[in-house]
Amino acid sequence: MTRGFEDLGYARPDTDREARMGLPEVVYGPGKTSEQVIGVVRSLLAGNEGPVLVTRIDPDDAAAVTAAVAGGRYDPVARLLVWRPAAERPFEVVVVAAGTSDGPVAAEAAAVARAIGLRVREVHDVGVAGVHRLLAVVDELAAADAVICVAGMEGALPSVVGGLVGCPVIAVPTSVGYGAVLGGVTPLLAMISSCAAGVVVVNIDSGFGAAVAAHRMAVARR
Amino acid sequence: MTRGFEDLGYARPDTDREARMGLPEVVYGPGKTSEQVIGVVRSLLAGNEGPVLVTRIDPDDAAAVTAAVAGGRYDPVARLLVWRPAAERPFEVVVVAAGTSDGPVAAEAAAVARAIGLRVREVHDVGVAGVHRLLAVVDELAAADAVICVAGMEGALPSVVGGLVGCPVIAVPTSVGYGAVLGGVTPLLAMISSCAAGVVVVNIDSGFGAAVAAHRMAVARR
Amino acid sequence: MTRGFEDLGYARPDTDREARMGLPEVVYGPGKTSEQVIGVVRSLLAGNEGPVLVTRIDPDDAAAVTAAVAGGRYDPVARLLVWRPAAERPFEVVVVAAGTSDGPVAAEAAAVARAIGLRVREVHDVGVAGVHRLLAVVDELAAADAVICVAGMEGALPSVVGGLVGCPVIAVPTSVGYGAVLGGVTPLLAMISSCAAGVVVVNIDSGFGAAVAAHRMAVARR
Amino acid sequence: MTRGFEDLGYARPDTDREARMGLPEVVYGPGKTSEQVIGVVRSLLAGNEGPVLVTRIDPDDAAAVTAAVAGGRYDPVARLLVWRPAAERPFEVVVVAAGTSDGPVAAEAAAVARAIGLRVREVHDVGVAGVHRLLAVVDELAAADAVICVAGMEGALPSVVGGLVGCPVIAVPTSVGYGAVLGGVTPLLAMISSCAAGVVVVNIDSGFGAAVAAHRMAVARR
Amino acid sequence: MTRGFEDLGYARPDTDREARMGLPEVVYGPGKTSEQVIGVVRSLLAGNEGPVLVTRIDPDDAAAVTAAVAGGRYDPVARLLVWRPAAERPFEVVVVAAGTSDGPVAAEAAAVARAIGLRVREVHDVGVAGVHRLLAVVDELAAADAVICVAGMEGALPSVVGGLVGCPVIAVPTSVGYGAVLGGVTPLLAMISSCAAGVVVVNIDSGFGAAVAAHRMAVARR
Amino acid sequence: MTRGFEDLGYARPDTDREARMGLPEVVYGPGKTSEQVIGVVRSLLAGNEGPVLVTRIDPDDAAAVTAAVAGGRYDPVARLLVWRPAAERPFEVVVVAAGTSDGPVAAEAAAVARAIGLRVREVHDVGVAGVHRLLAVVDELAAADAVICVAGMEGALPSVVGGLVGCPVIAVPTSVGYGAVLGGVTPLLAMISSCAAGVVVVNIDSGFGAAVAAHRMAVARR
Amino acid sequence: MTRGFEDLGYARPDTDREARMGLPEVVYGPGKTSEQVIGVVRSLLAGNEGPVLVTRIDPDDAAAVTAAVAGGRYDPVARLLVWRPAAERPFEVVVVAAGTSDGPVAAEAAAVARAIGLRVREVHDVGVAGVHRLLAVVDELAAADAVICVAGMEGALPSVVGGLVGCPVIAVPTSVGYGAVLGGVTPLLAMISSCAAGVVVVNIDSGFGAAVAAHRMAVARR
Amino acid sequence: MTRGFEDLGYARPDTDREARMGLPEVVYGPGKTSEQVIGVVRSLLAGNEGPVLVTRIDPDDAAAVTAAVAGGRYDPVARLLVWRPAAERPFEVVVVAAGTSDGPVAAEAAAVARAIGLRVREVHDVGVAGVHRLLAVVDELAAADAVICVAGMEGALPSVVGGLVGCPVIAVPTSVGYGAVLGGVTPLLAMISSCAAGVVVVNIDSGFGAAVAAHRMAVARR
Repeated sequence: MTRGFEDLGYARPDTDREARMGLPEVVYGPGKTSEQVIGVVRSLLAGNEGPVLVTRIDPDDAAAVTAAVAGGRYDPVARLLVWRPAAERPFEVVVVAAGTSDGPVAAEAAAVARAIGLRVREVHDVGVAGVHRLLAVVDELAAADAVICVAGMEGALPSVVGGLVGCPVIAVPTSVGYGAVLGGVTPLLAMISSCAAGVVVVNIDSGFGAAVAAHRMAVARR
Repeated sequence: MTRGFEDLGYARPDTDREARMGLPEVVYGPGKTSEQVIGVVRSLLAGNEGPVLVTRIDPDDAAAVTAAVAGGRYDPVARLLVWRPAAERPFEVVVVAAGTSDGPVAAEAAAVARAIGLRVREVHDVGVAGVHRLLAVVDELAAADAVICVAGMEGALPSVVGGLVGCPVIAVPTSVGYGAVLGGVTPLLAMISSCAAGVVVVNIDSGFGAAVAAHRMAVARR
Repeated sequence: MTRGFEDLGYARPDTDREARMGLPEVVYGPGKTSEQVIGVVRSLLAGNEGPVLVTRIDPDDAAAVTAAVAGGRYDPVARLLVWRPAAERPFEVVVVAAGTSDGPVAAEAAAVARAIGLRVREVHDVGVAGVHRLLAVVDELAAADAVICVAGMEGALPSVVGGLVGCPVIAVPTSVGYGAVLGGVTPLLAMISSCAAGVVVVNIDSGFGAAVAAHRMAVARR
Repeated sequence: MTRGFEDLGYARPDTDREARMGLPEVVYGPGKTSEQVIGVVRSLLAGNEGPVLVTRIDPDDAAAVTAAVAGGRYDPVARLLVWRPAAERPFEVVVVAAGTSDGPVAAEAAAVARAIGLRVREVHDVGVAGVHRLLAVVDELAAADAVICVAGMEGALPSVVGGLVGCPVIAVPTSVGYGAVLGGVTPLLAMISSCAAGVVVVNIDSGFGAAVAAHRMAVARR
Repeated sequence: MTRGFEDLGYARPDTDREARMGLPEVVYGPGKTSEQVIGVVRSLLAGNEGPVLVTRIDPDDAAAVTAAVAGGRYDPVARLLVWRPAAERPFEVVVVAAGTSDGPVAAEAAAVARAIGLRVREVHDVGVAGVHRLLAVVDELAAADAVICVAGMEGALPSVVGGLVGCPVIAVPTSVGYGAVLGGVTPLLAMISSCAAGVVVVNIDSGFGAAVAAHRMAVARR
Repeated sequence: MTRGFEDLGYARPDTDREARMGLPEVVYGPGKTSEQVIGVVRSLLAGNEGPVLVTRIDPDDAAAVTAAVAGGRYDPVARLLVWRPAAERPFEVVVVAAGTSDGPVAAEAAAVARAIGLRVREVHDVGVAGVHRLLAVVDELAAADAVICVAGMEGALPSVVGGLVGCPVIAVPTSVGYGAVLGGVTPLLAMISSCAAGVVVVNIDSGFGAAVAAHRMAVARR
Repeated sequence: MTRGFEDLGYARPDTDREARMGLPEVVYGPGKTSEQVIGVVRSLLAGNEGPVLVTRIDPDDAAAVTAAVAGGRYDPVARLLVWRPAAERPFEVVVVAAGTSDGPVAAEAAAVARAIGLRVREVHDVGVAGVHRLLAVVDELAAADAVICVAGMEGALPSVVGGLVGCPVIAVPTSVGYGAVLGGVTPLLAMISSCAAGVVVVNIDSGFGAAVAAHRMAVARR
Repeated sequence: MTRGFEDLGYARPDTDREARMGLPEVVYGPGKTSEQVIGVVRSLLAGNEGPVLVTRIDPDDAAAVTAAVAGGRYDPVARLLVWRPAAERPFEVVVVAAGTSDGPVAAEAAAVARAIGLRVREVHDVGVAGVHRLLAVVDELAAADAVICVAGMEGALPSVVGGLVGCPVIAVPTSVGYGAVLGGVTPLLAMISSCAAGVVVVNIDSGFGAAVAAHRMAVARR
């Protein structure tokens, strides 16, 4: 096992990850100073060839970072910074959102997926309380290589979708809603308990995690 | 306010409840000895005119009670004892169960509803992972005066039903499933968080509660 | 199944819901931009004939929306926007609040109920720690078609009301209180566990959900 | 500070407690062998002058212990063993139980209270779903020195009682019920959140704790 | 049962409570407008003879209220408004706080207790990690009619105190601390689980509840 | 949408699922009588062409079912019944278990995966407390099309594996362990919170869910 | 990194652990067949020189294992099997238990500690409700190299001990108690929240974990 | 037992703690006014000889305190105030952080440890998703007297470290992350459930607690 990382003191960017996993390390923005983000991004750009991303970064911090490291593009809805987006692979992900309020999480999923080379389509506001809206797009879903289902409140969407398509269904609970939604814990538990077999789940509000999960499926297709 | 109860020492059967609410007090079986159940049933039969029920009573206890108090009929699936079932009202409840394993809870809902004078139809195994099964019965549901939705796991059924019909939807979470289902807490929270407006919820596994909720709707129809 | 929705990209207003359920889709305000709310409201006004509502919308957003879409009326206590309120049906709901601090949730229940055509009476501050205040209004409650009980802290009010009246009792837990109230989870669990048979429950602070639940009972009365 | 205990190896009976608190140490039965219980009881009988109690002990273990240590009396409903019950003080506790199923916990409260010298009255089955049953005994409650309220499910009884009397109200949540009752956690949280000022709470099913709390009030009356 | 309340529309002050319980209703400040507080305070001053209190009220609201209703005194640490404090009874409460950070909760307990006529002593910073500080005040505690124990973090103080004195021990968990303290839920559960028999517990941060609990003990002493 | 199911009264086997998803419906054993299982299996065998499975069925029930429906094979460790296992696809899943005690869950994952046509390799007892055991099999993992990680206790295994391979990592929390493991909730939450990007999670102890998730990935590979 | 393990198929005993950590791998009994335990024990005896332990093994399984692998000694209270106990190091651990019912967990801590070479003293029943019992042994505690505190219920003991001694205090929450104890979660959270600085905590009922933690402290003393 | 504290009214600084435990009392900043902190610091400086620390104090408060009490040094990352730092002992602690975002907690651990006389080395960003970064520092870890592992999210780092070294491993869960991390409760439970034997845990974000735990190990080395 080679060294495979740079030691910046406050961080050890994993420059070996691209070789192991087909994707450079992604930087999680919260809790890091702009200086730390800049240092890690420079290290990752130098040590890898693929896309470099910073997630969940606020506009001000993003401006500071892109001023220091050229070539970055910021998506304010997805709160995502991207350098060197990957070329598109022939692997299509459909990002389905239950409600309009789930939009920012769906946007993160779509933006990350595009940045790391997946083909993306988005379908919004097809929650199960008007299930005909979902049935109207079944053919689109069935044609996908993977479906990312973003839903808050009771998190029922992946169960219905999971029964309609045979491809992977990646469920993303959101913190949308109030009261018994418990900040997203309820849709998380509901999705994990789904009666639709083989639905898989990532963290609350983690559009990012869902996109990388889809990437894993794409790279596994040798 | 009149006295309105009998004092048996260990219990005070509420003989006034039929006048206040249109339904005699119902006996909750667990935690009571057969002797206590017998005493309370006798008091309620004497002090009311309507149906007298004991819920969640085991076959052995039920046999002891029916031996002591004539006229009781026991339903072993619903674990329900009934004396003097009510005449049927023109109020139809459809009991919908998501899975076959939810059957006993659905059976309690149906048996209690019939005993207290509601017209009942049952539809089983229309979980959302095969949503075409549910869509095939939409007309039956839309013709109901109220729908009782029984579901475990992620508890998604009431959200879909709630978006298909305008009548009351009473959701009953069940303890069916394992792991993240948390003994029914997950479908309970999910149903409370339903994106379908106006869905109402009763306790986990409480087919009884759902049936009485429907009864309240029926009696309110003056 | 007809198409039944408009595709705005970020939203798919369900223009078929009025036909299915007797009430147009209601817009949940949080997490949507004013532009999105305006677009959805326009679509719903065009695609339905009944009342159009936006819930939980702040005064500033409400002002932006009403400036763009004429005819809307804003209720700042209930945080509710209404266009085309429905004509009153002969179905009376009594909204009962346990404490003065539960007022805003009760206000949402009352305002939504009126906007969708229910007759409403309000009774405030009849918490169970002074039960004579509640007993003084028993006749009003007993005359209702449905009672909405709004209570925080230990959420005991629906249990007492549920034992006093035979009509439907819709319990709304509130997040009023501190400590062991757990932001409303405690009264939610308490109401679900009510010893009064047939009490039904909606989400924490959801005056909206309770009003629509009452509407379902009203429309079921054919 | 004197030594004040005996060292049995597996246990250190606190022979000083009677002097400090006016009541000898009480033995908690579960998790101890009969031999250990016998040893501790003998030590406490020798080192104190007042009543010696073992709580939550099964009939078989109780028989073994009373065979070895003369003078013990066993109450199988309360699962309590008592030696040298105290003379009655002029301090009256009314034990109020919400339902018949709460009986065993109420029995423990009453039996322990009597054994340690309190005057006890019991009132059963006055749950809030038939509040007239409770109002019928208000005068009895108002005459008490303290009221112990035993209730499961939503645990509403102490809130109503707490608003009716000015004396201490000690709430005992029970594990009676199912589903959202969460084994008694729901009534515990509800009682802690009570809107009736100054209600105090002990552990789930702890009739014992409530009785000793009342004893503290009695001894404080110098 | 007489009427016993005034109907202000938004509130029904319980003017009968002083007769039933020996203490007028206390106003809980949060969630009420200054106008509502003013109205309720006026009603309570007119309908009772004893002390009138508003708890948890911020300085600005307190200033508005005292400007409108003469005779109120505001304690900014306890966040308490008081009119007509009661004459002192011969019942002494010792308020013991585990840490300096628990001070505001202890201050509420002490201020409310004094306002409703109890004699109060305060002992601060005697947490169990330096148990000699507590042992140094044992005689003071043993001389009390009741001890109020205020503690956050692990909430161990009432267990130690409960083993040192025979009088009532009222435990108040606080939200002081971080992480596993869970906003006070951990000391709440710990205090409820106390190995010291007969310790009773009130809500998190509820110095108010503890003071009223002590008042109940005082009035019970006829 | 065609009918696509058979109505057995107590069940509605989804005979259309194989067409929609590439895999017939799978029968969840618990909560169903042997007669119900027999009926559903017969319906699924008749209505589909692919493998028919019953999960989590006890030996006695399995014997009753296989006696009635020929051709079934029972795996007692995986508690799985299989008819008509599918031909193997060129998609290899490596099932990795953290500890020997996780064996039964890993066995279910492997047995289901094989029955539905996946190629399976198993690696046991490579928990992270002896990480060299895991590093010794990195090449095997890196060659897989998907890795199923089965782990209880703190559920750390998928995080380490997820950082070593680029293919999909499906995490299965188990209920192995005690205390803070909370019956598998802790590893579930930990896996959902994994710092390794793109790890996906299924329900506690659900080897079945993980296998079907892998199947979805295999069928998506057109 | 050498291979360092044996591959038994169902298990990979970590034969390198003794070199890395100074202690061979310990076998966790539950969830393993006797055959599996036998195989792992043989492998560990062959691949290491130090003590080999099996924890939480029932008498029947222990008998089967010791019949197959000579030299094992079984402790039925601690449910521990030991081969080749280590020679005693000059490092003394005092195991302090709050109550007699905590005995079995304390026994596991003591038995494991002795088997791995620590000197052990045991002090039982020094719970904080009779704090003089604890103060009587302060000198013993202060002379220890580490103190293991075993306590259930509110778990207060380590806070008091942690304030009395400067050496390491390892807290072990137990599942002793009922209701709000939540199976040991309450003392776990309380101990983690301890106001005594530097107290450390292991899993509920894990006498084993505490003993190994002490061993780590002993071996670190070079 | 001597008096051993000063009574400031609002606080009782424990001036005896240095004698009992080898370290003066440490001041927890939150919830105290600057005046209170100043008073306590002065008392501790006068009553002890060793280092005096204030933890979790904001820059403004720190400035006020250092202006009043000379000689204090403030570390803004660790939010720590120190007077009279201790001379370094020959006991080396390695503070290992899983991610850059865990930096502030690691900084508190390191700063407190240095202030109380431990030798400290810091290693950042060696999370288990790139385990080669951790393996690169194994020799450093193995040479330590104790390792403090700081990690958020799933909290897996201490399990891997605990299997690599024989010395004490003190795990510090952090609140870094979102969703299922539950503010640090998930890594707390995961660390408590660690499969690496003898790992011990302190409170969420408590770098302070970990440092003092290491100090206990150092002083125990006589």
